[in-house]
Amino acid sequence: MASNTFGNIFRMTTWGESHGKAIGVVVDGCPAGLDIHESDIQTALALRAPGRNLYTSPRVENDKAQILSGIFEGKTTGAPISILISNHDADSSKYECIKDLLRPGHANYTYLEKYGIFDYRGGGRASARETACRVAAGAIAKKLLQIQGIQIIAYIKQIGLIQANVDVRQIEEMRNLMEQNPLFCPDLNSVPAMIDLIEKAINEKDSLGGVVEFAALSIPVGLGDPIYQKLEAHLAYAMMSIPASKGFEIGEGFQSVSMPGSVHNDRFENISGKIQTETNHAGGILGGISNGMPIVGRVAFKPTSSIMQPQKTVTMQGEMAAFQLPEGSRHDPCVAIRAVPVVEAMLAIVLADAMLLNRCVKL
Amino acid sequence: MASNTFGNIFRMTTWGESHGKAIGVVVDGCPAGLDIHESDIQTALALRAPGRNLYTSPRVENDKAQILSGIFEGKTTGAPISILISNHDADSSKYECIKDLLRPGHANYTYLEKYGIFDYRGGGRASARETACRVAAGAIAKKLLQIQGIQIIAYIKQIGLIQANVDVRQIEEMRNLMEQNPLFCPDLNSVPAMIDLIEKAINEKDSLGGVVEFAALSIPVGLGDPIYQKLEAHLAYAMMSIPASKGFEIGEGFQSVSMPGSVHNDRFENISGKIQTETNHAGGILGGISNGMPIVGRVAFKPTSSIMQPQKTVTMQGEMAAFQLPEGSRHDPCVAIRAVPVVEAMLAIVLADAMLLNRCVKL
Amino acid sequence: MASNTFGNIFRMTTWGESHGKAIGVVVDGCPAGLDIHESDIQTALALRAPGRNLYTSPRVENDKAQILSGIFEGKTTGAPISILISNHDADSSKYECIKDLLRPGHANYTYLEKYGIFDYRGGGRASARETACRVAAGAIAKKLLQIQGIQIIAYIKQIGLIQANVDVRQIEEMRNLMEQNPLFCPDLNSVPAMIDLIEKAINEKDSLGGVVEFAALSIPVGLGDPIYQKLEAHLAYAMMSIPASKGFEIGEGFQSVSMPGSVHNDRFENISGKIQTETNHAGGILGGISNGMPIVGRVAFKPTSSIMQPQKTVTMQGEMAAFQLPEGSRHDPCVAIRAVPVVEAMLAIVLADAMLLNRCVKL
Amino acid sequence: MASNTFGNIFRMTTWGESHGKAIGVVVDGCPAGLDIHESDIQTALALRAPGRNLYTSPRVENDKAQILSGIFEGKTTGAPISILISNHDADSSKYECIKDLLRPGHANYTYLEKYGIFDYRGGGRASARETACRVAAGAIAKKLLQIQGIQIIAYIKQIGLIQANVDVRQIEEMRNLMEQNPLFCPDLNSVPAMIDLIEKAINEKDSLGGVVEFAALSIPVGLGDPIYQKLEAHLAYAMMSIPASKGFEIGEGFQSVSMPGSVHNDRFENISGKIQTETNHAGGILGGISNGMPIVGRVAFKPTSSIMQPQKTVTMQGEMAAFQLPEGSRHDPCVAIRAVPVVEAMLAIVLADAMLLNRCVKL
Repeated sequence: MASNTFGNIFRMTTWGESHGKAIGVVVDGCPAGLDIHESDIQTALALRAPGRNLYTSPRVENDKAQILSGIFEGKTTGAPISILISNHDADSSKYECIKDLLRPGHANYTYLEKYGIFDYRGGGRASARETACRVAAGAIAKKLLQIQGIQIIAYIKQIGLIQANVDVRQIEEMRNLMEQNPLFCPDLNSVPAMIDLIEKAINEKDSLGGVVEFAALSIPVGLGDPIYQKLEAHLAYAMMSIPASKGFEIGEGFQSVSMPGSVHNDRFENISGKIQTETNHAGGILGGISNGMPIVGRVAFKPTSSIMQPQKTVTMQGEMAAFQLPEGSRHDPCVAIRAVPVVEAMLAIVLADAMLLNRCVKL
Repeated sequence: MASNTFGNIFRMTTWGESHGKAIGVVVDGCPAGLDIHESDIQTALALRAPGRNLYTSPRVENDKAQILSGIFEGKTTGAPISILISNHDADSSKYECIKDLLRPGHANYTYLEKYGIFDYRGGGRASARETACRVAAGAIAKKLLQIQGIQIIAYIKQIGLIQANVDVRQIEEMRNLMEQNPLFCPDLNSVPAMIDLIEKAINEKDSLGGVVEFAALSIPVGLGDPIYQKLEAHLAYAMMSIPASKGFEIGEGFQSVSMPGSVHNDRFENISGKIQTETNHAGGILGGISNGMPIVGRVAFKPTSSIMQPQKTVTMQGEMAAFQLPEGSRHDPCVAIRAVPVVEAMLAIVLADAMLLNRCVKL
Repeated sequence: MASNTFGNIFRMTTWGESHGKAIGVVVDGCPAGLDIHESDIQTALALRAPGRNLYTSPRVENDKAQILSGIFEGKTTGAPISILISNHDADSSKYECIKDLLRPGHANYTYLEKYGIFDYRGGGRASARETACRVAAGAIAKKLLQIQGIQIIAYIKQIGLIQANVDVRQIEEMRNLMEQNPLFCPDLNSVPAMIDLIEKAINEKDSLGGVVEFAALSIPVGLGDPIYQKLEAHLAYAMMSIPASKGFEIGEGFQSVSMPGSVHNDRFENISGKIQTETNHAGGILGGISNGMPIVGRVAFKPTSSIMQPQKTVTMQGEMAAFQLPEGSRHDPCVAIRAVPVVEAMLAIVLADAMLLNRCVKL
Repeated sequence: MASNTFGNIFRMTTWGESHGKAIGVVVDGCPAGLDIHESDIQTALALRAPGRNLYTSPRVENDKAQILSGIFEGKTTGAPISILISNHDADSSKYECIKDLLRPGHANYTYLEKYGIFDYRGGGRASARETACRVAAGAIAKKLLQIQGIQIIAYIKQIGLIQANVDVRQIEEMRNLMEQNPLFCPDLNSVPAMIDLIEKAINEKDSLGGVVEFAALSIPVGLGDPIYQKLEAHLAYAMMSIPASKGFEIGEGFQSVSMPGSVHNDRFENISGKIQTETNHAGGILGGISNGMPIVGRVAFKPTSSIMQPQKTVTMQGEMAAFQLPEGSRHDPCVAIRAVPVVEAMLAIVLADAMLLNRCVKL
């Protein structure tokens, strides 16, 4: 019901507009006794920060997170953790000239119709800046997962039509490879072609879509609940709430459609006393519940809506107009790249929540 | 939190196992004053019924729905509507022989690990039979949508690699076309090849996946809420809760990844005083809120897990075993077909809920 | 949001009208592995049944509960437990003559204004018959509590101005005493005067109020959550949802107002290595969290609204009228008595839910 | 589930500890288009502020509220409203000496048992300072109610055994009278005796309890939902979540127990075309739904737990100890007085939420 809250037991509530005084998140339901420091949040935010590389929007905010509550002597207390991230570098004046125009691919039309008012400065509440709050909360969730030995990752799987070739088994190694390039892509062979594509898009004042893949390893059997709390449904819900996401897959996803059942069915086997499956077409979930195999899925991101070309549009009054971003505006040519840490954060939050819920299911 | 409840204001709670005494659904939050008769439920259930055609499982249940509460003198009263569907034709004995085997692609392993107990008879709670309850609740939601002039539909878009060619503008016509073939596919040109594929799968004791497309027309602007209650996120959550679903798309979905932003951005235009977009790549939703264009999306269904070939597996104790469905078992060769009315029901429920929630957003 | 659902993890959804085909409850979130038989439900319902004694309404329904789902081989499976109680002995015709009159102290006016329609037969959804569903769900919750060694009880503390003298320490003994009289009152000395009062009310075609006290012993420290999920707030919410309840107290309740802090503060002490308090004015809860002492509270019930005297009223159209219950109507002279098993059921459900929630709070 | 969130559609999430950097509240679900200024919040906080008079705790914080989000050009936008209140004047050092002692009547024991950690500085999360956040959110809710013409109030009804004599019909006049004395009591005749009682308690290093009465006028018929979302149940839940509250009543409350039904039943009458009741023993609610009469209820507050006398207690390790508040500590001798604006805030929030929910009930 609350549009700005996500999660059941481990729950975050985010607030704030792109050009307001600050943005923030309140994390409720985190168990007591977890070590959390501002640097944990800061490290996570740094990965998401705009201006990290040539291919993402250069607005530099050096997002500085302050923990205002919920931590005592370095540990969570069970009380809500309030994190505040101040806004800087927000020049709203340049948005004045476009405030009456419907931005193609943007939410200002639907917000105006729904609420009768829209804080247009930098996209207001509809700005992707809100995702910084998810990353902050995700940093806490990841610490919870680490304690349980669960490893998670997200990375660029595809940009435009170029697909990366990735093996999800070695998360540490993948993470090292990812950090060697500005695209969060662990397949270094694919990176140069992806970079070419992005540079071409920038030159053409256009943008590109991408696919982010995510994976979780060392997952216990039993996360997720049948029927309407299926783990994949929660993941889909989480991922489809990320700005610009247009599709979600678990396991083989849309590829499964063209597989015969005899191939898609993963065969159970006993490896040294542990039941697992030979293949993992299901993506680690059966009947809505994790089966202990790696959880693997993908999220499709549309090409960035903000492009530097002029675009035809109308005003809220229906008059024809040309939409042109102000000179000097800089936007990510491919939002999928900046979405990588957000996908990872949402994955962490969904799994942490499922883990906490799973403690009450049997006697 | 409640694993068997779906929805916020318009809310259903389902219960029942495949071979128990009955299954049922309680619909809460339906506004008072809506005409509802048992025949409305019955008509909806008939479309989903197994045994409808050669290509779906022939267990004949002639699902008979009884409304036990919430209706007075033919109208809803605001009280919860309880619908009960009795189970017949349930021979559990033939499941005895496979009760200790882990069924490839099925949920018995994960249920057993999570709960320590599994009602294996006909798949118990994990059976797709539960979806009859969704269809019953969906019939009520559809009546609510009709009053608002909203039209919805779902149909087969793809089976195996064969894609139907469909234009979503004429819902009445599509519905007529769909009913002329056993596949719920409105593109009659594609149907023969799809039928061939299904017959081949049956002969090979194998199964097929499919894609179900859904659409909603005459949608008001403003359904859905930003950030964590986005309309597409609710749709994804709803669809990924359907058994065998593995992927979800809104608008262009995964195709959007390879489109440039200049093409993907739908241009606003003023057609006779109504603001709309020239194209509808977004699928009718911007920033999580409906923009008045048709809502269009797709759900991927894996090939049916139950196949008549023998499959290698292990027992819960980890001993190697062969899994063979009992002689005379009959299963849908392509679950996507039977999922069509379920997708439509979930679409109806999500939209009805969003419509009711939308009444409280501005002064 | 869902008006007919109660609880978070352990959650019940009730449905049904007084004179409809049946009433029922769906219990979701009960852990798997609990022994539950229909006789458990039946035994609980018998205590609440009307017609149990002279002082409660003689409509005999011999409420027969059927468990339709969620139990396999005698144990809960983690799936929702659907319980159906058929309605018998429902002669709606006698309500015809009063259907247009606003019943003093009843809900038909507010239902009609809110929903525009009211199932007036036997009070419809607003009938206290709904509480049978709470008692059925409570029987399951009580079994969960028993496994944890928690004992609970509810009993008549006051009728009119006559207060019973009760010591809550001996729950087994109290239960024995309660069953020796038709008032559910463990203080046999007070019973004769209470009976006199009730007989006087019957003779005068009038009714009486009462106070039900509840207690829970052997409670672990830690149930309940601070701020907005305080254990006493959940108890108050639960009890104030019972028909005819008008007040709630925990510990000393309204009496605490006239106590000095130096007396009201319960002193901590160490008894054989266990921290407890010398007195228990707080009623077992500090800061919203159980402190291990007995949880004790009270619920005030107004006098029964249905009385046999004629009463002045108006019709929905505002015309003056006389309201007279049909000859032969029989109503409880004191609803507090029949509320005793309902208070106990709600107590059980709140505690079971708190117990399940409490598993996720610290590392 | 989320322990720090209250409300369904109109929803607040509070955070912060007494001696942390700040406390705050996020209000989600407020309709767009409402005029809100920081001064609205400030005015409300001023009434609750400690140090307002001799009889409440003199810690002066001049609570300065900052609105960080959700307001654009002076109006709500539908986005979450984040309000931050900085903490000043917080000397934690004096709490060092008592950090290992179990404080009689306080929550440190239950927090320590539940979470294994307690931020003891100034009571941490368990401090009544959290109620400032409720008052801030309540100021927004009150503005929503004003637009609907609903008037609300709360005031001291009783201190110790001294009861005020109050007529709830003239809210404006009551408010004027309340502000003429430091006790928030509109019955000026009772005030001197109440002041004597408080001064006596201060001299005796002891404390007093009190009763806060609340009322809402010009309420539409139809707020609240049957069965488990009854308006009085929500009010009880809200009030019992306020620190130190021990009892709740609606209408006659516990007094109704000793009234015959023939007296307690409020007779419907038609006054100039408007259906109302002659008396209002029910307190404005029938069957969980407002009936248009004034909503009237009461909340009992225990005597302040913090008293200046030495008290016997034990340490967390169970060793006997004497608990003595540090010299110079100042605490409210009667918390009920400071609870008055908090009760009013919770009333406003419950009614605003019920009003928003009520828009979706009939066609």
